[in-house]
Amino acid sequence: MKTIIIGGTAAGMSAAVKIQKMAKDPLITVYEKGEVVSFGACGLPYYVGDYFHDSHQMIAREQAAFEKMGIAVKLFHEVVAVDTTTKTVTVRDNFHDETFVDSYDQLLVASGATPIMPPVTTQLDGAAFENLFTLKTLGDGRALKTYLRLEEVYQVTIIGGGFIGVECAEAFLHQGKKVCLIQLDDHLLQDSFDEEISEVIEAKLRQAGVSLHLAEGVQDLVGSLDAEGNCRVTQVVTDQGEYRTDLVVVAIGVKPATDFLGPAFAKLANGALIVDDQGRTNVPDVWAAGDCATVPHLVTGDDRFIPLATGANKLGRIAGEVMTGADSHYPGTLGTAGVKFMELEAARTGITVADADKLGYDYNTVVIDDKNQTDYYPGQKDIRVKLIYDNQTLCLLGAQIAGENGAALRIDTLAAAITMEMTTKQLGLLDLLYAPPFARTWDVLNVAGNVAKSKKNSRKRQAISGKS
Amino acid sequence: MKTIIIGGTAAGMSAAVKIQKMAKDPLITVYEKGEVVSFGACGLPYYVGDYFHDSHQMIAREQAAFEKMGIAVKLFHEVVAVDTTTKTVTVRDNFHDETFVDSYDQLLVASGATPIMPPVTTQLDGAAFENLFTLKTLGDGRALKTYLRLEEVYQVTIIGGGFIGVECAEAFLHQGKKVCLIQLDDHLLQDSFDEEISEVIEAKLRQAGVSLHLAEGVQDLVGSLDAEGNCRVTQVVTDQGEYRTDLVVVAIGVKPATDFLGPAFAKLANGALIVDDQGRTNVPDVWAAGDCATVPHLVTGDDRFIPLATGANKLGRIAGEVMTGADSHYPGTLGTAGVKFMELEAARTGITVADADKLGYDYNTVVIDDKNQTDYYPGQKDIRVKLIYDNQTLCLLGAQIAGENGAALRIDTLAAAITMEMTTKQLGLLDLLYAPPFARTWDVLNVAGNVAKSKKNSRKRQAISGKS
Repeated sequence: MKTIIIGGTAAGMSAAVKIQKMAKDPLITVYEKGEVVSFGACGLPYYVGDYFHDSHQMIAREQAAFEKMGIAVKLFHEVVAVDTTTKTVTVRDNFHDETFVDSYDQLLVASGATPIMPPVTTQLDGAAFENLFTLKTLGDGRALKTYLRLEEVYQVTIIGGGFIGVECAEAFLHQGKKVCLIQLDDHLLQDSFDEEISEVIEAKLRQAGVSLHLAEGVQDLVGSLDAEGNCRVTQVVTDQGEYRTDLVVVAIGVKPATDFLGPAFAKLANGALIVDDQGRTNVPDVWAAGDCATVPHLVTGDDRFIPLATGANKLGRIAGEVMTGADSHYPGTLGTAGVKFMELEAARTGITVADADKLGYDYNTVVIDDKNQTDYYPGQKDIRVKLIYDNQTLCLLGAQIAGENGAALRIDTLAAAITMEMTTKQLGLLDLLYAPPFARTWDVLNVAGNVAKSKKNSRKRQAISGKS
Repeated sequence: MKTIIIGGTAAGMSAAVKIQKMAKDPLITVYEKGEVVSFGACGLPYYVGDYFHDSHQMIAREQAAFEKMGIAVKLFHEVVAVDTTTKTVTVRDNFHDETFVDSYDQLLVASGATPIMPPVTTQLDGAAFENLFTLKTLGDGRALKTYLRLEEVYQVTIIGGGFIGVECAEAFLHQGKKVCLIQLDDHLLQDSFDEEISEVIEAKLRQAGVSLHLAEGVQDLVGSLDAEGNCRVTQVVTDQGEYRTDLVVVAIGVKPATDFLGPAFAKLANGALIVDDQGRTNVPDVWAAGDCATVPHLVTGDDRFIPLATGANKLGRIAGEVMTGADSHYPGTLGTAGVKFMELEAARTGITVADADKLGYDYNTVVIDDKNQTDYYPGQKDIRVKLIYDNQTLCLLGAQIAGENGAALRIDTLAAAITMEMTTKQLGLLDLLYAPPFARTWDVLNVAGNVAKSKKNSRKRQAISGKS
């Protein structure tokens, strides 16, 4: 059984290892267009921020290790076309500048995603801005880190306030830079968090000295090309002002790298390949997983584009198992994710209020401001928990947390709760850990569960008295 | 409806507040034999260790606050007898040295527990050892803290290696003392943890300089009474040696304070009042909750003596609700608990292997040594996770964790998992938080779930080949 895998990052290599271990007679070739496989892009902001120096630490397993297992890994090899009728792929070897055709019995598309660029000027007279960066590949990271070292680079602009934008803000502060962050949405991380949590994150960025511009649209980049050929952005122009800058990072999101696939493939509007809970596309013998594909949502059941390493690894592994004949199923994603900014931790799981509204859920919410632990043990901090729950069944649908010292990890308890359809009432009496350094006797999650329970009742009462 | 509550700590005051809020015509009297109500004894080791100085920080709510709510709180009032036929209690007012009788419609026994003393010498010629302490009441804490300040107190001995013993070891080290801990069991915290976790805790105590004596029984205390009337322990005598000491703390466990209750009450062998999931004793109109009573175990369903503040608060509140006519039920305890010693965090939930063996479960276990987070972000630490799970259904039954930086709080996810009957397979694919500062892409809990799954299979194979 000949398997071709397009893309050698989280999903692709997870599948490759599973197939190699489980298949009777595995014959796997991984075509990776970049210079490395098994690269963890999540480390890039910390690499750029000088939290560590050896870029190889972001590589989970090197090419040689996979080769030793019997998996053929071809670097600098870009798949430029797939013919699903003849079951062949056209491959461009960018290192030797050659193109060839290879055939497969089974194909896994794990081609990932590429950064989205806003429609702005990116070059002058054919010269690209040398101080304009995205942050997705190892090469991106190295280039940005090198440029940051230049003494004249002080004022840094981040376009985009998602996870990478916020992590970059900390990284640049850590490097002693002055940081300006421009976000088109009304709030940071708007796809992931509701306002009550975003505003905590925003306050922390401002407190740390970040010049935060929300609800502001970048219109263009203005630069200069000097006699020595140095081509640099010098001004970021928005709908509300112009800002001098020494460096620009664009982090407004990613787009599935699926343009090389023809119309035979079912995709979301953004290009994400639609797959089932086994990673199958609509095309026979073709699977997909990772940032190029959808994941089924555990709560809503619909196909989502949620480009996270966790889902990529899990669905990649499942797809690999299924490709060897196993009947594995991916239970679905909750989009569990988190971010640390200085001491602040924020995390989320399940659906947000925006999701719930869009999908017409009959839901209720509760927001609790509490403390993470006893006051007498050093380290007591504020913690805010938001729950979104079904108004009829009281089952948890989503949760968000912001705080310090153990705030983020508490989201895992709520991810387990949502997965198992726990009610707010059960959460209120859940036997959670208490000891003075870790929690209060009634942990904030208990409190949220208990208050949610009552709130539903009060809402019911409101409904009875004529308000909905 | 006249309610008497015996004991004004976690369970008693939780019930009192609920009854006061929910009952139509509440008339509540709390008889508390000590000097305060709503006292959190869990803070005592940290108070003694000088992590904080104001002992009132251990009091959740003062007497006056309860009185303002309409709850009569009588301090220094000890209930010495209950007549369940006439529905009266005999109360000794230790402040005014008077005894009187009061009647109730409903009675809640929340009298707590008292430290167990080993059968050793505790006094000489009628003078009590002034450097021999237990640690349960506010008075105990103040006395111990005061004595610790004496310059000549350097060598401190702790008898008992449970939660309080381990916390005291840290407290005394924090105060610059030399610490010897003597434990009768083979391992520290033997009722709570299996060996694989205890040994991590033991290694940490030894590394911190604690002289740790396991499987060693204290036989007697030897002391001296000098001309000025100073009566002090000077030697701890065990079955393996004699140790010079300047101070002794006994923390070998507690016994329910139920001796004042007659044979009408059903009790466990140790005196714990047996209650149902509403806090009802076998005696009409008498409830019990907290350290004087049992709690139903969520996994095993049997009545356990697990004297923890969490269960006391929760069952206390439930009992209060039921006493006002509500049909509330306590879902049961998992004995979720944890301890911090220096940087080390350890936590547990559900049943241990000892429990499983005793109750004849067909179980399996897995122990995983992993890391808490990515290696490139500062703060990566070892973490060990043990799962105990049903061999047939793969449902989780118990879990234990040892590590640093977020190890303990991960137990809450497993408490939720056990409560909701999650399988190891589901845990393996649970959508847990990943971000470089918090976890690895496959969190250690995912890894444990996945390995547990395979291990069951391997065990099956072993059984087929003739080994059990």
